[in-house]
Formats: sequence, C-alpha cells, structure tokens
Amino acid sequence: MELVSKQIKKHNFSAGPAILPASVINEAANAAKDFNGMGLSILEISHRSPEFVQVLDEAVSSTRELLNLNDDYEVLFLTGGASSQFFMTAMNLLPQDGKAAYINTGTWSSKAIKEAKYFGSIEELASSKDQNFSYIPKGYPIADDLNYLHLTSNNTIYGTQYHDWPTTPVPLVCDMSSDIFCRPIDIHKFGLIYAGAQKNLGPAGTTLVIVRKDMLGKVKRNIPTMLDYQTHINKNSSFNTPPVYPIYVCMLTMRWLRANGGLEAMEKKNEEKAALLYGEIDANPLFKGVANTEDRSLMNVTFVMNDNTLESEFLEVCSAEGCVGVKGHRSVGGFRASIYNAMPIESVQVLVDVMKDFAERKG
Amino acid sequence: MELVSKQIKKHNFSAGPAILPASVINEAANAAKDFNGMGLSILEISHRSPEFVQVLDEAVSSTRELLNLNDDYEVLFLTGGASSQFFMTAMNLLPQDGKAAYINTGTWSSKAIKEAKYFGSIEELASSKDQNFSYIPKGYPIADDLNYLHLTSNNTIYGTQYHDWPTTPVPLVCDMSSDIFCRPIDIHKFGLIYAGAQKNLGPAGTTLVIVRKDMLGKVKRNIPTMLDYQTHINKNSSFNTPPVYPIYVCMLTMRWLRANGGLEAMEKKNEEKAALLYGEIDANPLFKGVANTEDRSLMNVTFVMNDNTLESEFLEVCSAEGCVGVKGHRSVGGFRASIYNAMPIESVQVLVDVMKDFAERKG
Repeated sequence: MELVSKQIKKHNFSAGPAILPASVINEAANAAKDFNGMGLSILEISHRSPEFVQVLDEAVSSTRELLNLNDDYEVLFLTGGASSQFFMTAMNLLPQDGKAAYINTGTWSSKAIKEAKYFGSIEELASSKDQNFSYIPKGYPIADDLNYLHLTSNNTIYGTQYHDWPTTPVPLVCDMSSDIFCRPIDIHKFGLIYAGAQKNLGPAGTTLVIVRKDMLGKVKRNIPTMLDYQTHINKNSSFNTPPVYPIYVCMLTMRWLRANGGLEAMEKKNEEKAALLYGEIDANPLFKGVANTEDRSLMNVTFVMNDNTLESEFLEVCSAEGCVGVKGHRSVGGFRASIYNAMPIESVQVLVDVMKDFAERKG
Repeated sequence: MELVSKQIKKHNFSAGPAILPASVINEAANAAKDFNGMGLSILEISHRSPEFVQVLDEAVSSTRELLNLNDDYEVLFLTGGASSQFFMTAMNLLPQDGKAAYINTGTWSSKAIKEAKYFGSIEELASSKDQNFSYIPKGYPIADDLNYLHLTSNNTIYGTQYHDWPTTPVPLVCDMSSDIFCRPIDIHKFGLIYAGAQKNLGPAGTTLVIVRKDMLGKVKRNIPTMLDYQTHINKNSSFNTPPVYPIYVCMLTMRWLRANGGLEAMEKKNEEKAALLYGEIDANPLFKGVANTEDRSLMNVTFVMNDNTLESEFLEVCSAEGCVGVKGHRSVGGFRASIYNAMPIESVQVLVDVMKDFAERKG
C-alpha cells in the first residue's frame, strides 16, 4: 500500500515569473541555506563581500559572452522591473528637444509610450492595435533625426515576436523582458536593451540593462542619482545594495545557458518546441492560434478554442496532467503556454498529448 | 578519526545584508525548492497566484500588527532600496514651493538631503558633521510651516541612534533602514517611514514604505507612474511584478517577530545584547566606544582600539572564533558589530569572550 500520494510532476507554462532550470533551482535553494561553504546563507552576506562581487562579475561577463558584447556596451543589473525602464530610457536618452519613435505592439509598448512622453516628443510610428495586437507592424519609414526607435521584441500577452528587426538609420531601444537570450541577436542594431529578469533570466527582482556608451551624456535635465544610468555604470551596479539573491539566480541561469550551448543552441531548442506546439494547434480541430502566423512568438504560444464552452473543461484536464499556468490573459482569452528557455520539450509534449487526447474524446 | 573537518558556527555581525533568523533561512531555502507543496519553487510562480498574493497580504498585515497601524497608513513593498526613497519622498511629498528640513546624522542623511534638493527648498536644520557624526543633534527649533522633518533613525556607519524623537509641529519622515522593528515606536509622529529590507527585515531587494494618506496628493509635478506612491497604493504593491522572493523572506521574518513577542520583546532583547557588548567595551582596557554614550545604537556597535596596531590581530582572532563582519567602516575605522534583531545573545557573548580573552593575553 502506498501511504504517501505521489506528487505529479508540474509542467510550468506560466508567463512570468516563470520556469527556471531544475539545476538552477536546486543550486539556488542550497545557496539560500549555505552559500559556497561559507557557513552563511547568501541572503545574509554583504553585497561588498568578495563572494558576492564574484557573482555579480560573473553575471556581467556571462551577459557579455552570450551576446558578444564589446567594450562599447555597459551591462547593469538594476531594480524596478521593466516598468521603471519605460521612463528611465527616455529620461536618460532623450534630450528635452529630442524625438523618439515607438512601435506599439501591445500593453507593454503602450505603457512605454505613456511614460516616455514625460521627457520629450514621442511619435507612435506604427501600431497593431487595430487587430488586438495580433501582428507585428512592418514597412514603416523611419526618420533619421530620431534619437531612437523603441520596440518591444516579444509580446507576452498577445503571443507575437519580431523575427526580423526593422532596417533603421537610428539605434533601437528594445524591451526584451520576455525573450532575452531565446536566440542570438545582432547587437549592433541596439543602443539599449532592457529586460525584467522574471521570464528567461531569473526570478523577479532585478532588471538587466545593456547600454551602448554613445547613447548617454546627451541630456541636460537633472536626474536623481539612482535614476541615472551613469551612476550604476560608475559603481558596477553596486552604488546602493543590489538585489543580491535575484542577481545570483540570474548568474546561475546564465551559467546553465552557457553550459547548454549558448544562444544558438537555445534558438534551435526553442524552435523545436514552438514547432511542436504550433503544429498541434494548427492540426487539432478544436484549437486555433491567435497571433499572425509569421509573427508567432517562440516564447508565448496563444491559442483559443473554436467552441469556447469547452475551455474550462480543457483547463481542468491540463491541471490534472500537471500543466499549470495555461490560462490565457484576459485581453486575449483562451490559452497561453509560455515555453521559455528552461521549458523542456518533454513538457511541451505532455501538453500536446493532452490536446490530442482531448480532441479525440470530443471529436 | 574524523574525516570531515567540523565547520565553525558563524556569528554574523555584518552591517547589511545581515543576519536573519535561522528558522527563516531554513524555510526560505525550502520554499526555493518547493513552495507550500505546490511542486514549484517560489522563484517560478506568478506574482498573481493566490499563493503569492497571500504572502504579500501577510507581509502587509504583519507590518500593520507590529506597528499598530490604523487605516490612516498605507504599507508598500517597493524596490530600489532606501536610496530611491531619498528622492521619492521629496518627489511625492514636497510641493515645488514647499519646504522641508533635514537633520544630518551621517552618510545616509547627507545623501537624502542631496536628492531631496531636486524637488524643493531643503534646510539642513542640524548636523553632527562637526564631530564625525558621533552624536545625535538635539534642541533645535522646528518651524511649523515645514512640509516635513526628515530623520535617519539609526546610523549604521557611525553607530548612533535616536532614543527620543524631537517634539515637532510637523510630520516626521524617517529612514529606518537599519533599525525598523528593533523597538516599538509612536507611529503618530510619523508621516512616512521607509526601510531597505536588508538589515532587520529580510534580504536585499525590497523596501518597506509606510505612508500616512494625508501626506499625499499635495504636489502638482508630473511623476512617472512607477515613482508615484499612489500607483502602488492603488495596486497593493503589484502594479508591476514585485520582488517575490525578497518580500516572501520579509514576510517570514515578520512571522518570526510576531511569534517571538513582537517589538516589546525585541526591544528588551536588543537592550540586553547592547548592554552586554557596550559593557565590555567600557570595561576592557584595550577598547573604547565611538558614539556619544547617550546616542549609542542598539543595532550597530562601533568601537576602536586604544592601540590601533593591534587591530588586525584582533580581527584574526574574531575570525578564528567565527565572528564575521566585525571590521569597521572606513569612515570610522576600528570595529563595528551589528547586532540586529536576529542576532542571538549567545553570539554577542562569544564576541565579548573574544575581547576579554584578547585583553588578558595583551594585558
């Protein structure tokens, strides 16, 4: 007789905070008890200790290695989430008489536009709002007198993603919160990249900012010390006490990324997972995809049911099979399966099997 | 034959990030592996999940219980550390034509003054800079037309602490980063209290802000959404993804505080620990205290040697006995033993014994 009920393995499809590699979670949990054999938890050591300085240094050097950054770029680990970068980018990069353009591909782009308007002239150059953000606008002309063009590379809610960057005479500023490190990128196009950690990078509580030095020093406004990128550059992200544990877990995740073939290998794996899941959505008579096919996200797969009265029953079946976080965002409805870097293809297969089985039973 | 060398128990006297209760560290490490039997790490669950909403609710209600807050006060868990509060307080509370006074008791007060000056007229009403911040100024007149008076309740670097609040006709705004929850306070004097978590409250990565509602709504300047207290009040600290794990560990620490008698019991324990250590400093011929006796901090005990050529040897002995984090800040020199809430008196006794023994050997 089995006295203890066996826990079902969970397949975590949450949009964020999101799945992290199992080995990262194990090591992070151990460090919370005793870090590096110090006899102390990483939660209670000084951010100036050699042990944490080494963590931060590795997080920065791993970012540099993964994205092939040269010395033109600075790497920062800040707080406040991507939501703080919505205003900090404009505050730091856009002169009072400057002009920036934004492409509106959803909720996060809209928020970025709203916050940037406090600091200069902002033009919404293109938008996919007309079709509930189900596609990525293309083919708009880009003026060469802009300080920058702002994009949101992946849209968690709507399940769209840029697969080609626009050809642009001005630097891109890009919110990559939900797809950083999912594939190699041509860094030279980017003046600044920011990413809240809690999807592909680590747990909630820190934000990666990569900035090309020539983007800075162009604004004359007074900026509080903590909001000035230069402050954090000068002090290696330790002007004030950085979020030690979130940065540590990001460092572990990047160590895992490097040990698993880096961004080329990630892209290949992500494409296989996405092909498997989108393939099932397209083949299964009960489901259909939400995003424009050519703009489909490798990270957030959005889909609905042709007969939406079956939705709650499908969610129950998912849950019974250990697939959690599959419910869609209220702005889109239906389902969203987030299949970030750390998601194994075996878990995607479980979801696909649930979909197949459900269709057979209902067919 | 003992094959594995026994690890010395560490006595963590670090100034911050700092010692946390052993039970909190254990539970936090377990939750990083599997939270509440969910089969998921707390690092990878949604901040909108019922499980985390409950954590945040308990963190807020515990703060309310510990400080006897009524509905006039709002409780927020933000990011950016106390350093971001240096400007956010003035940005949110001080009208363009307003006036605030600051008492300068050290490095952190000086930074608060610098950042506040971006937003209004700031008067440095009193300062202890003339004696390297070794005392708390007293007896200054406070005008009744100020928007607020800003204090730093405890000065980690210099080892001073307010033991009586000034009698004031205006609300106090107070940085309590290094002594929040070390003792009961008369909350009615305070319009706003802020505290970076990484001393008495939890790990680095979140900042507690307690604000009386009538302090808000008085400024007309444009404030970016993320910097406006009202944003976070309206969304229960979840306007954006909050720092899940740091808040969770704060919640655990407050649960521990409540289970151990709350702030009255903490004060008694802190007074006993401080009396033991200051008693030894005063009695031991090798050492002397740095701070003015009546302003001595219950949290950060600063002391130097009469013969400073013995300092490095003393630090080696400390280290050999497992006492870590005892080196003083470079602005003061000598030693600093931080004895926050989570520090057991047994660890203070170990340090005292080391001091006694060292004096006997050198005497």
